[in-house]
Amino acid sequence: MAGALVDVKPTPILKEELDIVIPTIRNLDFLEMWRPFFEPYHLIIVQDGDPSRTIKVPDGFDYELYNRNDINRILGPKASCISFKDSACRCFGYLVSKKKYIFTIDDDCFVAKDPSGKEINALEQHIKNLLNPSTPLFFNTLYDPYREGADFVRGYPFSLREGVPTAVSHGLWLNIPDYDAPTQLAKPLERNTRFVDVVLTIPGGTLFPMCGMNLAFNRELIGPAMYFGLMGIREPIGRYGDMWSGWCVKVICDHLGYGVKTGLPYIWHSKASDPIIAFVNLREEYYGIFWQEELNPFFQSAVRTKACATVQKCYIELSKQVKDELGRIDPYFLKLADAMVTWVGAWDELNVKCYLS
Amino acid sequence: MAGALVDVKPTPILKEELDIVIPTIRNLDFLEMWRPFFEPYHLIIVQDGDPSRTIKVPDGFDYELYNRNDINRILGPKASCISFKDSACRCFGYLVSKKKYIFTIDDDCFVAKDPSGKEINALEQHIKNLLNPSTPLFFNTLYDPYREGADFVRGYPFSLREGVPTAVSHGLWLNIPDYDAPTQLAKPLERNTRFVDVVLTIPGGTLFPMCGMNLAFNRELIGPAMYFGLMGIREPIGRYGDMWSGWCVKVICDHLGYGVKTGLPYIWHSKASDPIIAFVNLREEYYGIFWQEELNPFFQSAVRTKACATVQKCYIELSKQVKDELGRIDPYFLKLADAMVTWVGAWDELNVKCYLS
Repeated sequence: MAGALVDVKPTPILKEELDIVIPTIRNLDFLEMWRPFFEPYHLIIVQDGDPSRTIKVPDGFDYELYNRNDINRILGPKASCISFKDSACRCFGYLVSKKKYIFTIDDDCFVAKDPSGKEINALEQHIKNLLNPSTPLFFNTLYDPYREGADFVRGYPFSLREGVPTAVSHGLWLNIPDYDAPTQLAKPLERNTRFVDVVLTIPGGTLFPMCGMNLAFNRELIGPAMYFGLMGIREPIGRYGDMWSGWCVKVICDHLGYGVKTGLPYIWHSKASDPIIAFVNLREEYYGIFWQEELNPFFQSAVRTKACATVQKCYIELSKQVKDELGRIDPYFLKLADAMVTWVGAWDELNVKCYLS
Repeated sequence: MAGALVDVKPTPILKEELDIVIPTIRNLDFLEMWRPFFEPYHLIIVQDGDPSRTIKVPDGFDYELYNRNDINRILGPKASCISFKDSACRCFGYLVSKKKYIFTIDDDCFVAKDPSGKEINALEQHIKNLLNPSTPLFFNTLYDPYREGADFVRGYPFSLREGVPTAVSHGLWLNIPDYDAPTQLAKPLERNTRFVDVVLTIPGGTLFPMCGMNLAFNRELIGPAMYFGLMGIREPIGRYGDMWSGWCVKVICDHLGYGVKTGLPYIWHSKASDPIIAFVNLREEYYGIFWQEELNPFFQSAVRTKACATVQKCYIELSKQVKDELGRIDPYFLKLADAMVTWVGAWDELNVKCYLS
């Protein structure tokens, strides 16, 4: 029998299968805190600002570090698709990785504790989420049916109990929630203290705000759509790379039959609640907040009607729709549509082995 | 500013606004345990079996009791739409109520405790769920944004932060989960011990298995669709009245712009894990399990394209689609389609005041 009646035991993911991608590290406590969890894996650090600044990685970590000069050297003219001075540059790490899975995390995210006080191994939970199927086609009221002690409830169609492959695992944040700048300004003291012990599949056809702070994905399934767009310096918009990517990823996952999970694991998000930061965020987010009203209906109706069989084909098709339907909002979207094509070209160039195998 | 930036405080719902509907009470401990929570309200008890059997309700409760003879007397020939010997008969209580809200619960559901050991006031949580808006049009990763300490996260469109009216609050079960008979047989010892501290809106366009054990709804918004179908004796199917109702309710809520929430509150479900019961359940559920495979695609595409502006019109339209598209599966669906029309007729007859006011 399919589904939860089989005891699904995740196997550990090896170093050969997973890379950890981090956009800049300004705080070395970050790596020390994660040392027991990250040391067994390879880190890809993508420096988002001035390439002459050096990041000193403590001993014991296996890592590669890319700054802007490296990005320009490796991608040549295609480097134009990688953001500068915005954590959206992290997607360069997805390009150069050769592993099946990626875990990406921000340097202001620390190890959280569960209600019993035990440190949460975020990476282990992401791996569990990615190795177990998703259930986007019908909602299970006891949440993840593959989890120990849970199953599909009465009324859940048996034909859907095998689930679909999971492409994305979206983790959450204790302490400082991922609010937009207006909400930060309105609620400077709000902290997320509620540990919700749940993982669930975001249903098919439903969009969600994908945050890049604590995120894992199957690069083989969805990598070419994990492009964080054009953000930061030289662009009218910042702090929306993960959102853009999340909307593209979700419609393509829905189209290709892959699942997106959200919930556990939590990390401890420590960003200071400084009103100055909120004002800077507000300036950077302004167009994101403004445009997202039009992006929602756009993505609600995007791609799905087209018969595209690979992530790359879906993504190129989506870039055409961005040009045709969003270009009228602002010329930025014409440039972004071109950058999407450049990104897929860079992906195919650096990942040529995938197609030969 | 709309949405969660306003502090939404639910007002208590008065006796004049809510009825508690219970299908038969075989166990008087049930009422004693709920006494502090139920005594302030009016109970409607709908006896599902032999009308000569009497149910002794302890002193102190304000109640009305209906048996089969009462149903036949009140509805006349339209009584044919009310199930006999199945808890689906409970929907008769929704018909005769004159209140805005209904809470319905099974007599094997007891007061649960939260992780701190405090007794959970299920009714109070349902009321909170129904009085706060729902967010079916976009998923919020911090779950219910209207809950204290939560909000909409970065990337959530501002135009959707007012939410939509909540029509249904679906509560969950600790101890014995609501599994179908095959799963009960395969996992006789499984207990739900995980208290998940969350309420979430089931996204628009997504179906779910609505369980009638611990359920509340806004009768004015969705009452005419809360029909539990033809189940039990004389029918090929049982134990699926809540599922049938849930699928009809969800597509109509999606169409009319109402929300459906699931999660808190928990009750303690105490049904004995007797394999004999599981075998009886298997026999009753057989056609439910078999037919649900075809019902899922049917409901996925039902109603939505039609321009029906009231619950009644949606429901009549849905009954036509049941006749046209499901009648070929089994003549039972032709009979059920007729019963749906009869039900709406009975609703309009008994609720005529709603249309005059």
